[in-house]
Amino acid sequence: MKALLFTGNQSFRLEAQPPQAPRPGEVQLRVAYCGVCGTDVHIYHGAMAHRLRLPQVIGHEVSAEVAAVGDGVTGWQPGDRVTVRPLQPGPDDPSDNGQRHIGKNLTFIGIDSPGGMQTHWNVPAHTLHRLPDTLSLQLGALIEPLAVACHDVRLGEVQPGEQVVVIGGGPIGMLVALVARQKGANVLVSEVNPARLALAESLELATANPKEQDLVSEVERFTNGAMADVVFEVSGVAAGVQAMTQVARARGRIVMVAIHADPKPVDLFRFFWRELRLIGARVYEPQDFEEAIALAASGTLPLDQLITQVSPLAEAKTVFETIDSNPAGMKYLLEVN
Amino acid sequence: MKALLFTGNQSFRLEAQPPQAPRPGEVQLRVAYCGVCGTDVHIYHGAMAHRLRLPQVIGHEVSAEVAAVGDGVTGWQPGDRVTVRPLQPGPDDPSDNGQRHIGKNLTFIGIDSPGGMQTHWNVPAHTLHRLPDTLSLQLGALIEPLAVACHDVRLGEVQPGEQVVVIGGGPIGMLVALVARQKGANVLVSEVNPARLALAESLELATANPKEQDLVSEVERFTNGAMADVVFEVSGVAAGVQAMTQVARARGRIVMVAIHADPKPVDLFRFFWRELRLIGARVYEPQDFEEAIALAASGTLPLDQLITQVSPLAEAKTVFETIDSNPAGMKYLLEVN
Ligand SMILES: NC(=O)c1ccc[n+]([C@@H]2O[C@H](COP(=O)([O-])OP(=O)(O)OC[C@H]3O[C@@H](n4cnc5c(N)ncnc54)[C@H](O)[C@@H]3O)[C@@H](O)[C@H]2O)c1
Ligand SMILES: NC(=O)c1ccc[n+]([C@@H]2O[C@H](COP(=O)([O-])OP(=O)(O)OC[C@H]3O[C@@H](n4cnc5c(N)ncnc54)[C@H](O)[C@@H]3O)[C@@H](O)[C@H]2O)c1
Ligand SMILES: [Zn+2]
Ligand SMILES: [Zn+2]
Repeated sequence: MKALLFTGNQSFRLEAQPPQAPRPGEVQLRVAYCGVCGTDVHIYHGAMAHRLRLPQVIGHEVSAEVAAVGDGVTGWQPGDRVTVRPLQPGPDDPSDNGQRHIGKNLTFIGIDSPGGMQTHWNVPAHTLHRLPDTLSLQLGALIEPLAVACHDVRLGEVQPGEQVVVIGGGPIGMLVALVARQKGANVLVSEVNPARLALAESLELATANPKEQDLVSEVERFTNGAMADVVFEVSGVAAGVQAMTQVARARGRIVMVAIHADPKPVDLFRFFWRELRLIGARVYEPQDFEEAIALAASGTLPLDQLITQVSPLAEAKTVFETIDSNPAGMKYLLEVN
Repeated sequence: MKALLFTGNQSFRLEAQPPQAPRPGEVQLRVAYCGVCGTDVHIYHGAMAHRLRLPQVIGHEVSAEVAAVGDGVTGWQPGDRVTVRPLQPGPDDPSDNGQRHIGKNLTFIGIDSPGGMQTHWNVPAHTLHRLPDTLSLQLGALIEPLAVACHDVRLGEVQPGEQVVVIGGGPIGMLVALVARQKGANVLVSEVNPARLALAESLELATANPKEQDLVSEVERFTNGAMADVVFEVSGVAAGVQAMTQVARARGRIVMVAIHADPKPVDLFRFFWRELRLIGARVYEPQDFEEAIALAASGTLPLDQLITQVSPLAEAKTVFETIDSNPAGMKYLLEVN
């Protein structure tokens, strides 16, 4: 087998290794594609170093075929086409309130344990979701970020006919916009990157560029003064946090998808004044994966257009460099073979 | 009639005036008691000057008897005992989404129009709620802040057996704590003022002083590690905003009751990480007044103990000075006659 080892310091080493048999409860996957996530890029730049054990394989947006099953695993056969929900719950903590997908002792596969940028990958059987035959393995590698979007839209309780503003049109924001539109919402994407704005427009999403337009006026116009029923903050920047409270209607819901490493000023007066709601959203639950798979298989989302480039595993370093130098791209996939 | 005119600059003038007949749709009240709200104290210090027309009568926490009814008013008779929900909705704005109690064009009676610190007060009939004969007129003057607390607890969806932390044990926080306890919650009040801590303890509420104890450890102990299902931020200070995200469990609800005039740093990472929810809460809806009246009339809340002092209208200036110099007091009532 081949494994792409991240060795720290923006470097990778592709190494031939003997494959390890799956342990009891595990399934050995033959990985097909692995998407590069923003988190992987952060890791490449040195983030989360305390959670990794270098050299380590990273990556968690995977499509694969089952190669072998470990003792005690039922329901999976070699050849089954799957994707991985990369969450390994730890012991329950009383403050988790039963929410295992965000438990205090949860670990993330591909960060806290080896990831999918290797030809043979052993994962716990409980992480697998079946891909229908009608879904290509390339689109199968988009299921993980699509499940994030399904989770966000579900927690935002987006209803048909509602007005939705997505702040930040990166891979996650764009998927949120597509899923919200698929639920029957009218969606406007706020984005500052011209290439990403153009992509959103080619997907027939309404757009605004808050660097060139007054976003509040644009949302007023877009909603005939009703303002947004639901706002998704997916930019991760202070300007997005400032905008999110301005474009919401009375009792509007604001879904916090972005990861803000440091506390940021929030207009709490407006939360009081307009009875706004903020809803934190992290990763996904099993039902979000099932919904993402069904949505992708239905062919109603233009997911193909989000794939910027597919490259062999051996070119991973170049791919990470390209992502760094070309923030206009969306999803980069590594072909793992 | 007598009216207490706020003349600006921390000054009042008690003036004899001829009573005005109620206009169509209005009811003339004979005011019994008027509570002094934190907002009144802010106004006394010069806040919201642009919303007042000096000299102006302020005050909005009132119990009264109906003295006369204007043309077209049905359902009210002289002698009826009432309290006032001091909200005057304006024209609907599309961004209100039908939430009239927080509408863009709402005005607040007692700030944007004359208030209850006068013997005879004309108010729109739609603002009235009936007080049962069994409820004293002194407690009737507590219905308005109690309705705030009922609204907050309702929006927080507090369930029996839930763990509740109230940050800030002023008049509003204390009422929130009492209403939440009455719903069957286990309530801990976080407060820094020793006299208010002592009052909370005399009401048999659990307490913590975050200046002397580690609040997170205290909440851990109080909840056996489960942390708070619902947090009410009623302190209005940055330390309260910092604490609110630390003491909530996964998917915990944080109700934003306090008015934070300026944006404050919020731990948005924790909103994402633990899928927290923030729920803005402002004033009340009619059902909150009905609930507050029923609760007060039931005699199950120790409301008497929240009344620090009852003073004649003529001593208003002294009362405001006392509130300023003695932050340990809770509710001050003016007897209006
Ligand atoms: N909640 C979760 O579980 C979860 C999962 C994955 C990613 N995330 C987070 O979601 C966020 C988005 O992820 P991504 O991969 O799409 O990241 P990204 O950086 O590619 O996307 C952010 C986008 O916001 C745009 N932007 C910058 N300033 C803006 C402004 N003022 N107004 C509008 N848009 C602006 C950028 O141009 C960029 O396109 C990140 O913070 C990421 O960490 C969260
Ligand atoms: N949402 C609404 O409609 C509504 C209605 C009325 C009042 N309010 C707001 O609610 C808030 C409370 O009103 P109030 O009249 O009880 O005010 P208050 O100032 O009397 O009460 C605030 C309390 O917080 C305490 N405090 C200060 N620092 C603290 C800390 N670090 N930790 C814990 N407690 C701390 C203070 O000692 C004080 O007792 C104010 O911001 C007020 O404007 C909102
Ligand atoms: Zn990811
Ligand atoms: Zn008040």
